[in-house]
Amino acid sequence: MKLLCFESTAKAASVALLEDSRLLGELYVNNGLTHSQTLLPMAQAVLENTKITGQELDCIAVAAGPGSFTGVRIGIAAVKGLAMALDKPCAPVSTLAAMAALMPYRAGTVCAVMDARCAQVYNALFALQDGKIQRLTPDRAVPVAQLRDELAAYPGPIFLVGDGAELCYNELKLDVPGLILTPEHLRMQRAYGVGIAAQQGDVERVTAQELLPVYLRMPQAQRELKRRQAGGLE
Amino acid sequence: MKLLCFESTAKAASVALLEDSRLLGELYVNNGLTHSQTLLPMAQAVLENTKITGQELDCIAVAAGPGSFTGVRIGIAAVKGLAMALDKPCAPVSTLAAMAALMPYRAGTVCAVMDARCAQVYNALFALQDGKIQRLTPDRAVPVAQLRDELAAYPGPIFLVGDGAELCYNELKLDVPGLILTPEHLRMQRAYGVGIAAQQGDVERVTAQELLPVYLRMPQAQRELKRRQAGGLE
Repeated sequence: MKLLCFESTAKAASVALLEDSRLLGELYVNNGLTHSQTLLPMAQAVLENTKITGQELDCIAVAAGPGSFTGVRIGIAAVKGLAMALDKPCAPVSTLAAMAALMPYRAGTVCAVMDARCAQVYNALFALQDGKIQRLTPDRAVPVAQLRDELAAYPGPIFLVGDGAELCYNELKLDVPGLILTPEHLRMQRAYGVGIAAQQGDVERVTAQELLPVYLRMPQAQRELKRRQAGGLE
Repeated sequence: MKLLCFESTAKAASVALLEDSRLLGELYVNNGLTHSQTLLPMAQAVLENTKITGQELDCIAVAAGPGSFTGVRIGIAAVKGLAMALDKPCAPVSTLAAMAALMPYRAGTVCAVMDARCAQVYNALFALQDGKIQRLTPDRAVPVAQLRDELAAYPGPIFLVGDGAELCYNELKLDVPGLILTPEHLRMQRAYGVGIAAQQGDVERVTAQELLPVYLRMPQAQRELKRRQAGGLE
C-alpha cells in the first residue's frame, strides 16, 4: 500500500511517501517558512524525486491534530484538496500517536506532549512493551501540574517526545523519577511517523469530505468570544 | 554554521541541510533509483524548499565511505563538483560514524555494520555513555566470525545499526547476549547523521581537490586483476 503522509501541526513540516512500513521518500523542512506556501511544493518534490505519481497512491494520511490551529488547518486543507482531485481515501492520524510510533525503545512509557500555551499541554500516554506500543490515554489538553500527578503512577523510563518535551522535562524532572528527554532528532514530529501510525488498527479511512481537524480545544478567538457572550448575559 | 550533507553509500540516498546541530531540511529517497541521477536534483530540492542558496553554505559534508563503491564515488563526485563551483570546504565523514551519531540510547555499545559481501562487513564499534558517543575501533572490513569473538568483550546492550544489521543479528544472536537489532527506521543511513558527525572534533576540513573516497578494500575488479597478475608471475 502506497501512502502519502503530511505533518504540519507545529513549526516544522514534512511529507513522506511509504510503501507499507518502508519509507520510499521524505522531505522535512524547518526553516521558519509558512506551511501554506511550502506544503504542496514539498509533496510535489517527494513525488518527483521518488518518480511516483499521485494516481499510484492508495491513501493520503495527515496529522489531523492536536497542534497549532493554523498548522492543523493547512495540513487538512491540503490533504482534502489532493484527495478530492485524485479520488483517494484519507487517513486522519493523531499527531501524538504519530510521534509515539517512531519511539525506538523496548520498554517503558511514552509521554507525547505539545505546548498548548496557557500552562497546558496536548498529551497522550502510551505503553512500550517488547518494542510494541499501546495507547494508555486518549488525546487530551491537560495542565502540566495534572501530568505530574499522573506520571507518578506509570513505570519508568518515561520518554518525553514532542515540542512540549523540554518544557515538561524542566517542570517535572525533580518530581518524576525516570523521566527522560529523548534526543532532539527523535523529538520532532515527522510525516514518516504519521504513515506508520496510519497503518495501526485503530485508524479509520474517510473521504476528503469527511476529513476534519481535531483541535481538542476551541481556538483562542472563539474562547474569548464565548467568554464575552457569557459576560454579556450577566 | 550551515552545512549541506550528502549520504549515498548504500541503496537509499539523502541530502540534509543543518544549521549547527539543528536540521533545517532533509530529503530522503529509497526507491531503487540511480544515485547518479537523483543526488544533485535532491540537493536542489532541499535548498529550494528551505530557501537557502549555495552561497550561504559554510561547508559541504559527505559520507566518504565505506560503502557501495559506486555509491561512495557518486557522493564524492557530486560534493567535489559543488564545493569547487561554490568555493566551499568539504568535510569527509565516516559512513559508520554518521550512523552511530543518531543513536538515541543512553548507554551500551553501538555496532555499525554494512554488508561488504564475501562474508565480510564494514564495521566500527562505539561506546555510548550518558548519551555521548566515543569511538572504540577504526573503520575496518572484518569477517562476521571475527566480530562474534570481539563483541563478547563489550558491555551490552549492543545496538546493531546499518544495512548489515539484520545479517549480523541473525548470525550472532545466539552467541552474543545483549545484541539488539535497532528498529528499521533508525537502522538506515541518513544525511542528517553525516551533518552531526561532521561537527564532531575529529573531522577535518579539506578542499574539493583533496576530497577522497574511503573504500577500505579494493574494488572487486582490482582485486581480481591483482590476483591474475600474481598468478601470471608464478
